[in-house]
Amino acid sequence: MEITPKSLAALTGGDVEGDENAVITGFAKIEEARPGDLSFIANPKYAHYIETTGATAVLVGKNFVVDKPVTPVLIRVADPYATLAQLLRMVEGMKPQPEGVEQPSYVSEGVALPEHVYIGAFAYIGKGVKLGKNVKIYPQVYVGDGCEIGDDSVLRSGVKVYEGCRIGSRCILHSGAVIGADGFGFAPHDGKFEKLPQTGIVEICDDVEIGANTTIDRATFGSTVIGEGTKLDNLIQVAHNVTIGRSNVFAAQTGIAGSTHIGDGNMVGGQCGFAGHIKVGDYNEIGAQSGIPNNVGSKRRIIGYPAIDARQFAKNQVYLKNLGKLYDEIKNIRKQ
Amino acid sequence: MEITPKSLAALTGGDVEGDENAVITGFAKIEEARPGDLSFIANPKYAHYIETTGATAVLVGKNFVVDKPVTPVLIRVADPYATLAQLLRMVEGMKPQPEGVEQPSYVSEGVALPEHVYIGAFAYIGKGVKLGKNVKIYPQVYVGDGCEIGDDSVLRSGVKVYEGCRIGSRCILHSGAVIGADGFGFAPHDGKFEKLPQTGIVEICDDVEIGANTTIDRATFGSTVIGEGTKLDNLIQVAHNVTIGRSNVFAAQTGIAGSTHIGDGNMVGGQCGFAGHIKVGDYNEIGAQSGIPNNVGSKRRIIGYPAIDARQFAKNQVYLKNLGKLYDEIKNIRKQ
Amino acid sequence: MEITPKSLAALTGGDVEGDENAVITGFAKIEEARPGDLSFIANPKYAHYIETTGATAVLVGKNFVVDKPVTPVLIRVADPYATLAQLLRMVEGMKPQPEGVEQPSYVSEGVALPEHVYIGAFAYIGKGVKLGKNVKIYPQVYVGDGCEIGDDSVLRSGVKVYEGCRIGSRCILHSGAVIGADGFGFAPHDGKFEKLPQTGIVEICDDVEIGANTTIDRATFGSTVIGEGTKLDNLIQVAHNVTIGRSNVFAAQTGIAGSTHIGDGNMVGGQCGFAGHIKVGDYNEIGAQSGIPNNVGSKRRIIGYPAIDARQFAKNQVYLKNLGKLYDEIKNIRKQ
Repeated sequence: MEITPKSLAALTGGDVEGDENAVITGFAKIEEARPGDLSFIANPKYAHYIETTGATAVLVGKNFVVDKPVTPVLIRVADPYATLAQLLRMVEGMKPQPEGVEQPSYVSEGVALPEHVYIGAFAYIGKGVKLGKNVKIYPQVYVGDGCEIGDDSVLRSGVKVYEGCRIGSRCILHSGAVIGADGFGFAPHDGKFEKLPQTGIVEICDDVEIGANTTIDRATFGSTVIGEGTKLDNLIQVAHNVTIGRSNVFAAQTGIAGSTHIGDGNMVGGQCGFAGHIKVGDYNEIGAQSGIPNNVGSKRRIIGYPAIDARQFAKNQVYLKNLGKLYDEIKNIRKQ
Repeated sequence: MEITPKSLAALTGGDVEGDENAVITGFAKIEEARPGDLSFIANPKYAHYIETTGATAVLVGKNFVVDKPVTPVLIRVADPYATLAQLLRMVEGMKPQPEGVEQPSYVSEGVALPEHVYIGAFAYIGKGVKLGKNVKIYPQVYVGDGCEIGDDSVLRSGVKVYEGCRIGSRCILHSGAVIGADGFGFAPHDGKFEKLPQTGIVEICDDVEIGANTTIDRATFGSTVIGEGTKLDNLIQVAHNVTIGRSNVFAAQTGIAGSTHIGDGNMVGGQCGFAGHIKVGDYNEIGAQSGIPNNVGSKRRIIGYPAIDARQFAKNQVYLKNLGKLYDEIKNIRKQ
Repeated sequence: MEITPKSLAALTGGDVEGDENAVITGFAKIEEARPGDLSFIANPKYAHYIETTGATAVLVGKNFVVDKPVTPVLIRVADPYATLAQLLRMVEGMKPQPEGVEQPSYVSEGVALPEHVYIGAFAYIGKGVKLGKNVKIYPQVYVGDGCEIGDDSVLRSGVKVYEGCRIGSRCILHSGAVIGADGFGFAPHDGKFEKLPQTGIVEICDDVEIGANTTIDRATFGSTVIGEGTKLDNLIQVAHNVTIGRSNVFAAQTGIAGSTHIGDGNMVGGQCGFAGHIKVGDYNEIGAQSGIPNNVGSKRRIIGYPAIDARQFAKNQVYLKNLGKLYDEIKNIRKQ
């Protein structure tokens, strides 16, 4: 890659401040960038690095303020992070993709292999599986009988998809993700627990990304659903019969218990736990490590165990910090 | 499948209210059921769906109350959930099971393959492994040297069992479960940590189910033990030298630190953490996300971080909620 | 193995109290040991077992006190746990190691296989991979294009390493560990989340051990780094651009959010969560299930959600326990 701020500005609709013919050959974080690198500032926490960075050019916001002249060329754009993403995707898109069938692999009789499909070595494709165009199945993936995988989806090495599950188009499933294992259902009987067979499936809609070692259980009946454009980080647990709507992001190690329904556009921190059989609305921000025992409305900011309004949580922290003083004060009052 | 309420009642010892000759062809959740479906109501939270469900027949409890006539045929049984489980297992039991040895797979010389065994493609069976009758080893499973697996057990795709571990009969291990990895033992020495080799094994007793991506570490010496009939959900961590008794259920993402002993019949919520070297008795109910730092007796209901009596926890939540008012009140008293 | 206390004392610089010619044939925990076993006492909690153990000999500290004569031979050493580790490593070191290339496996053209390398069946070695001497790649491992793995490192069955990552010498990666999956980076755009390609790598330094099903994401740019001698337990999440220093130990199920920097020698309990973009110093002890939202200095003992000084946490627990009484007291004062 070799590109100038001038070309970048043209590609991204940005404005250049500085040498528009400088040569950019790579990307780097602002604090690690060296000459030749393009970097970016999206988080104000990192703004001060503009004075010390070695970057040749930096993507900044339209209103980014510099108090004194700086070395790097500034490329002002509406959303530096989104622009960076766009540029990186362009570069990524130029990389050659794997294609063809490596041997040995196991493709059941009758499975059609559309154009540009990749089947890595030691991958297993069960009976009646339907693969879309350009699907990339990396080595050691297991796709059980009757699964469907939409166009352009990628299953990285070691993904396991149990029988009958459906994965949409343009999905990315990272290594170790397990889709469609049995939901955790047992009927107590005579002091023992008897298995409730899980007869449903998992349905993953288009443009979903599933992190490494995340597990999504099949429904008892019907489907466990991950809605369009939702992104799940690593080591997340989604129990049977959960439905998640569109364009949510869930950070790592969060767990969602059975039959809970989550709406659209929620941002959920890491290590949260959602109780079973609850409803969560849309566009909530839920802080890391929260416990969510009950229904949640929409557009709320909550945190805590159990989760409460984020402002109330902050107040409570102050109260808790001062509990010792409170006890002392009561003691004094009592004396008087 | 095609069956009538009459036949179902005969199979399950239930009583029919309504058309005993209606035709049932499938199962569904009460809120999603359509004509032809059998459904069930076990949780009172779902009782109201009896008025709107499309189900042809519904399994309900002996004392389930209907205020007005309802459309579905009611089949009254002692325990609707257990009866449903029984029916689903019957249907499940009729499904054809995989059998035989797929190629390529790796079965070490001298390993006997009893009747009805399935060895999936890319599975690896180490030296001296003993497999019981009807064992199902799915593709890409690894069974290390010297392991034993009892009759009728199922290891789903990608399970890894380290050398020397023992798995009982009728166990189900879901994809990505890792049995017998080294316990986390290090001796600090000169500011570094030196590995303590883990020379023991994992012993999984009969009728245990292990969730996807759950990890159970081998003992330093002796055995890490999962007792008969215990069920572990996904992404659970069981550290070295832990022993768990019979018929416990652990929800997802719970962790149990080293050398802790847990009794029988406990029900543990998701994301709980048990400290190491403690003892937990029998038949406790432990709420989700609890931290258990010390010994626990038996038949207790506890929750919290650290876990306390569940009623006390509920009271504390009220106290915490009112802390602001308390501070205000103290302020007033001081003024007076 | 057959050894005497006399020989053991010579090997470990210990002093024998009792029959120095007794015969030791194995190791066991103090509470489970039988005649012929060598055991150890490192934790005072277990000291009382010296009176009841069946062990033939026990490693104890220089100052270990026995009130009355005991049956086992005592071998006094400076650090019983470290000495035990040393002995176990000696025994471990005598075990035969796998070697050679099992078939079928997939080794890309041009990959050199140095002496004593083991490539298990169904392992996949990508293009341009560099393997050190004595590297052990177990069955079903995936090593992506361009990875480097240093001398004497072991990748247990099913480990996945994405393209371009670097693993040092003498590392142990347990089954299901995923190294180098994409960091969780998305740019919100028009109500959707667009993927930010993750162009960096993971760099694991020498003498690191990574637990089963632990996930370490590749950096957006540059490297996610696990420093020399650091040990990660099972099911841990390390997000993109995290750097961890030397000789830390992290217990299971802990998560570290993106771009956080952690120093050296920290001991972190299970199920902790570190916020993103923070700095943690050296030699801290962080209690299990803690939430760490902000920077942490060095040599601190913290715990809680959010984490505070461990002594303050203990005090707060007492305050919380007494909140009910406090409310009652205020009520009384108000009456008066």
